[in-house]
Amino acid sequence: MTTMTRVIHAGGLRHFCEAVLRRADVSQPDATTIADAMVEADLRGVRSHGVVLLPYYFDRLLGAGLNPRPDLSILQETPHFALLDGDNGMGHLAGVRAMTIAIEKAKAQGMAAVGVRNTSHYGAGAYYPMMALEYDLIGLATCNTAPSMAPWGGTTPTVGNNPLTVAIPAGEETPIVLDMAMSVVAFGKILLALRQGKKIPLGWGLTPQGEPTEDPSSVFPYGSLVPFGGHKGLGLAVVMEVLSGVLTGAVFGTDLELADGPDVPERIGHFYAALAMSAFIPLPEAKRGVDRLIRQVKSSGKASGINRIYLPGEIEAETKARSLEHGIRFEGGVVAELEKLASRLDLRIGWEEAS
Amino acid sequence: MTTMTRVIHAGGLRHFCEAVLRRADVSQPDATTIADAMVEADLRGVRSHGVVLLPYYFDRLLGAGLNPRPDLSILQETPHFALLDGDNGMGHLAGVRAMTIAIEKAKAQGMAAVGVRNTSHYGAGAYYPMMALEYDLIGLATCNTAPSMAPWGGTTPTVGNNPLTVAIPAGEETPIVLDMAMSVVAFGKILLALRQGKKIPLGWGLTPQGEPTEDPSSVFPYGSLVPFGGHKGLGLAVVMEVLSGVLTGAVFGTDLELADGPDVPERIGHFYAALAMSAFIPLPEAKRGVDRLIRQVKSSGKASGINRIYLPGEIEAETKARSLEHGIRFEGGVVAELEKLASRLDLRIGWEEAS
Repeated sequence: MTTMTRVIHAGGLRHFCEAVLRRADVSQPDATTIADAMVEADLRGVRSHGVVLLPYYFDRLLGAGLNPRPDLSILQETPHFALLDGDNGMGHLAGVRAMTIAIEKAKAQGMAAVGVRNTSHYGAGAYYPMMALEYDLIGLATCNTAPSMAPWGGTTPTVGNNPLTVAIPAGEETPIVLDMAMSVVAFGKILLALRQGKKIPLGWGLTPQGEPTEDPSSVFPYGSLVPFGGHKGLGLAVVMEVLSGVLTGAVFGTDLELADGPDVPERIGHFYAALAMSAFIPLPEAKRGVDRLIRQVKSSGKASGINRIYLPGEIEAETKARSLEHGIRFEGGVVAELEKLASRLDLRIGWEEAS
Repeated sequence: MTTMTRVIHAGGLRHFCEAVLRRADVSQPDATTIADAMVEADLRGVRSHGVVLLPYYFDRLLGAGLNPRPDLSILQETPHFALLDGDNGMGHLAGVRAMTIAIEKAKAQGMAAVGVRNTSHYGAGAYYPMMALEYDLIGLATCNTAPSMAPWGGTTPTVGNNPLTVAIPAGEETPIVLDMAMSVVAFGKILLALRQGKKIPLGWGLTPQGEPTEDPSSVFPYGSLVPFGGHKGLGLAVVMEVLSGVLTGAVFGTDLELADGPDVPERIGHFYAALAMSAFIPLPEAKRGVDRLIRQVKSSGKASGINRIYLPGEIEAETKARSLEHGIRFEGGVVAELEKLASRLDLRIGWEEAS
């Protein structure tokens, strides 16, 4: 098998994304919004949440799983809060709209929170809180997801592997961007081991009986993921489930089905918040403080074999700079999947064979 | 050696705490406030953060480490925010004052955040966000602490083992109370192993060279704690350091010294926030939702050997109910330490020998 490696600039990839979404009856403005969010994930090297998901989204847009023409309505609004109905549209749209509202409100009041119900997967979580950075606001996003983690001591997947993303503006340094899920590893890694016929390390997943296992087929699809830090990660996931699923009136916990068919809406909730960096002290002082903390962390002594210390989000920022200059590379299976989608729609992906 | 086990009711323990604090020149109202917070930790079984710390606080109140008569001033205030100067008083006082302000503001506006600088250790973090529960607010507290964790790949303790506490009101069920530090284990456990001449498991601490070790003496006092979930726990600790240490204009990161002498002020910061449960949907619906999620989690299938599933804060709530009925038990070293303090001050601890 020849290795298929392709390289494409962000503009070309965005163009392809938009074209695919347009074929699924997404409006041009919405397609642009979604493509921006998806390509940003690939630019930052968060490949699991970028255009690799395009075939999945496309099938769901054609089915009843996702509404290509959602009417995002504001169900409730105060100076600090808003609740949106996502109308089962793509989560990226709801995320951009909700975070925009949170930013507007936080610019006026210093802090705000916006919830969304009846929505779906929003891709890479960092995109939304990072929207707050240029306004000197700390951004936060979380959502709930189909249950994949059993409670501590339990066997039934009850709580989602809910992501938590926080973006903190810096002065001269790179902003701090924390983007983490609540499991030790994502289901994707367990699936990969399953496909490759490999064992998984103990501590990644549990059998349906709640036993630790090295066998990926005991974890997927009927077992559960192990939360990071054990009960701590599970506790955090519960808090995220409350913020995004319960407070918003979305569907949550075991009421959520695994949306594995293209016709099953996700019905999840999102939660976005923004907080002024200048809540307590003048903005320049706060930003200098973040710079100082970043420099302290980076100037730590290095363990053997370590050349450099990274803050959360720093690797992604540098990957983005490289990707903007040299293009985004795609390899193997993803190339084939996207080519398949393109050929099905009679579209051309403007990428080139990479050296 | 005879095992010394003592039992005391909350009222008696509170009385002793107040008497000790009064001897250190703390005012009666402040002594009451602090004693309440300390005894609540023991009632809930969070023994590491209750009256076991009294001798430590007492010496610091006599020295310059803690100001027994702090004048808590509001440095800055808006409808959503306040910044307090803790005047190097006990963190419990600043915590109660700050959370009270956050609650008042969130009752009016739906959300609020209060910061404190120039403050100190506040005991068990759960006390403050739990104050918000009766007002149907979600409470959050964090603070920064002397650096004890190296960044990922690093060797220099740079970031504190900063606690995160969140309290979420329920309807009929027990409120969810998450209270966690960012390390795999607290320094206390490593010290205990050191005193007992025992090894520690790999994964608890690092040597000053950043190497994993089983030798507690390589970790304390010059090595570092391992963050829970690796880079995830460290990332969360950085976020907590920003909220409590940077945004408040407190001292943070490596600018903080380990306050190991009774004359060294801690100079840390606190961060408190409150959010209305009814931010997006009517309160009864939100509380029913939390109940529903709690019941889903608790009705999970149980792993072998597990009889019951607990939500965060549930064990502590049941421990408190038992302690209120049967008193709080103290054993061994702690009994001796507190008796020593009592005899030094010519005070009597109103406890009894336990059967």
